Amino acid sequence: MVKITALETFDVRFPTSLAHDGSDAMNPDPDYSAAYVVLKTDAPDNLAGYGLVFTIGRGNDIQTAALAALRPMVVGRAVDDIVSDLGGFARQLTGDSQLRWLGPEKGVMHMAIGAVINAAWDLAARAANKPVWRFIADMTPEQLVSQIDFRYLTDALTPEQALAILREAEPHKQARIAQLEAEGYPAYTTSPGWLGYTDEKMQRLAKKAVADGFRTIKLKVGLRMEDDLRRCRLAREAVGPDIAIAVDANQRWDVDTAIEWLKPLKDIGLAWVEEPTNPDDVLGHAAIRRGVSPIPISTGEHGQNRVLFKQLLQAQAVDLIQIDAARVGGVNENLAILLLAAKFGVRVFPHAGGVGLCELVQHLAMADFIAITGKKDDRAIEFVDHLHEHFDDPVTIEDGRYLAPTAPGFSARMHEASVRDHLFPHGIVWQDTPRTAAG
Amino acid sequence: MVKITALETFDVRFPTSLAHDGSDAMNPDPDYSAAYVVLKTDAPDNLAGYGLVFTIGRGNDIQTAALAALRPMVVGRAVDDIVSDLGGFARQLTGDSQLRWLGPEKGVMHMAIGAVINAAWDLAARAANKPVWRFIADMTPEQLVSQIDFRYLTDALTPEQALAILREAEPHKQARIAQLEAEGYPAYTTSPGWLGYTDEKMQRLAKKAVADGFRTIKLKVGLRMEDDLRRCRLAREAVGPDIAIAVDANQRWDVDTAIEWLKPLKDIGLAWVEEPTNPDDVLGHAAIRRGVSPIPISTGEHGQNRVLFKQLLQAQAVDLIQIDAARVGGVNENLAILLLAAKFGVRVFPHAGGVGLCELVQHLAMADFIAITGKKDDRAIEFVDHLHEHFDDPVTIEDGRYLAPTAPGFSARMHEASVRDHLFPHGIVWQDTPRTAAG
Repeated sequence: MVKITALETFDVRFPTSLAHDGSDAMNPDPDYSAAYVVLKTDAPDNLAGYGLVFTIGRGNDIQTAALAALRPMVVGRAVDDIVSDLGGFARQLTGDSQLRWLGPEKGVMHMAIGAVINAAWDLAARAANKPVWRFIADMTPEQLVSQIDFRYLTDALTPEQALAILREAEPHKQARIAQLEAEGYPAYTTSPGWLGYTDEKMQRLAKKAVADGFRTIKLKVGLRMEDDLRRCRLAREAVGPDIAIAVDANQRWDVDTAIEWLKPLKDIGLAWVEEPTNPDDVLGHAAIRRGVSPIPISTGEHGQNRVLFKQLLQAQAVDLIQIDAARVGGVNENLAILLLAAKFGVRVFPHAGGVGLCELVQHLAMADFIAITGKKDDRAIEFVDHLHEHFDDPVTIEDGRYLAPTAPGFSARMHEASVRDHLFPHGIVWQDTPRTAAG
Repeated sequence: MVKITALETFDVRFPTSLAHDGSDAMNPDPDYSAAYVVLKTDAPDNLAGYGLVFTIGRGNDIQTAALAALRPMVVGRAVDDIVSDLGGFARQLTGDSQLRWLGPEKGVMHMAIGAVINAAWDLAARAANKPVWRFIADMTPEQLVSQIDFRYLTDALTPEQALAILREAEPHKQARIAQLEAEGYPAYTTSPGWLGYTDEKMQRLAKKAVADGFRTIKLKVGLRMEDDLRRCRLAREAVGPDIAIAVDANQRWDVDTAIEWLKPLKDIGLAWVEEPTNPDDVLGHAAIRRGVSPIPISTGEHGQNRVLFKQLLQAQAVDLIQIDAARVGGVNENLAILLLAAKFGVRVFPHAGGVGLCELVQHLAMADFIAITGKKDDRAIEFVDHLHEHFDDPVTIEDGRYLAPTAPGFSARMHEASVRDHLFPHGIVWQDTPRTAAG
């Protein structure tokens, strides 16, 4: 019987703050980091599962400690028991009453649980010799429903309603798999839009994005109103009328400020405004949405759990949502969120970037297309071209589209050398680097 | 110039699961614990500040690691700079963009920040030779407003509105201080109501509570509907018609289940139903409140931050709220929540129990009476008679009332021997104790 023999953790940090990559209105100097977890087994083929929590530097050690705290719930268990009941595994981790107190189901502990759950999915998909998107897509509607903890959801989505959605997709799955493999899944790019970039660099990168096949670009906003208006106009000049432009305020505003700030942007024809205010503020997003109509409002990358997403949808607070592969309780909770979005008819534009978020979240969007909504061309996955070179199975972008991964697993495995060199604080990269923000 | 010379952390755990103290519908076997923090100084009188995060066992080590991560933001700083601008200190800790990513403003990182902020208030009040309630009460309205981060609040409460509330209280403060010192502040007790207790023990303790002067008792509910009805009726028999009975479901139900479950309890005359569902579910609480009217609904002990409380009040989701001294971002964020509650005219029944929560939260309720609402006899602070013996300045309860603390500080300092003996896992108490849940 193959067992989990170890849960190994690694505090991996990249000194991205030196180049202002990833700068936005709330996060001026992120050092993109991963609290990285490996579930080792005693299988003869070195089968293992890989997962991570994305952070932006300081605190990655706390996140790593939270991963390590899950060891007693994982090490020594039979791999078959876990991979044959990933829903039960997820419920055990999120349901531990003592650890739950630290959230509940939010923040450091919940993200750690999510990473270990994701590592278990990675392990399960590797064992099945399938990429995770396909591993999910090949589940029956009943198997998919069993992945989900419906606690606190039933006033918005019952197991029966979820099953009905999944059964409607069932006859179309094989055709959609073929379609996905032929066409890929639309991507949008934030690469031109970081606040640290000059106007000239932004316009140049925006044009390049269009030339590269992207149909949507996103700009960071929220530092100075006049800069935002100028940058949005310059971006529109650069890309022309047919490319969608979204903006991302990264939680910068109070409710009334958001409404005031966004009014001058109405004639840009924005695709959406992302995170206009605090991510917890369901009612605030609803008020902003009413106040700036018809500008579409979005949030979700910091959405703490399914209860928050349920309320965003119930309150008609958003026109679309972001999901993040590493913020909530793993694949299982993201399946719940995808089904909620399907039930409410709200499009999902997955959040990515950072370290490995593109690699992970593409699987969820592709599984949504095949097994849940059947839609992909009215939505897109974020793409940022940072740090992919550290992954064994990096995303492949062609003509503005994510190509469906073919390697088994969740694409979450990092190169061993990348992990070793970027270990904080003693890896070789940190020995050669001024300590800046991460110190 | 006196400086902070060290931020010391301690993983302190009490093996309370052995006696089923503190058992409820969600938490069957808590080991009450404190991630305890001491801010040491080089003052000649050994001035120091004490704070803690309350947890229920496993994960207390993660919480302790999060406290330690704040060291670089605290150690080496001048005590005068911190105590003369506690609002600025709180904003620095909550505003660090890299650490904020781990929440934002929720969960492990936010609770650690709250504990260090509380330790700074403890330090400041000790330096001023006042208990914290008095230290707060003696601030001018302008000083109090400067403590608060109004970010994300201004659609519900502006600094000007807060100032108006505080100025209205100003002329009455001296009289209220005298009244508080003479009368104390009402307490209510959860001691009879733990789920692990037999009916006989519950009734005996309920009668004892009334004999001891308490005017409100609280029972845990949520395991079996018929048990709850029986226990509520037996409690009503035991205490008679004039004593208020509240029940606490500890997040046990989905929205529709809560409504169904509570209907048979309508004729008990409940004072409130606490945490009927997930603490994040603002809209769910509002739906439950509408569905079981006129039973009063409450939540808040797991309320993650001021944005959650703002929405509970905006949505008319609750009839009253709990605050917790160690869940949010310290005194500063609790002052924001108290002012929000005052603005919306909602009563506050502070959550306590655990380790040191009674000691801490009494100061906030008393400060609210003096400097904010002027009300205390229509509300009460929870009291549970556990673990007070480990504190230097334990609460004093007389005739069902908390007496105003007289010792300087926040009453958060534990006996050195208690800390030493309960250190996990090597303290002497854990060497003699079966590892049960905490292992």
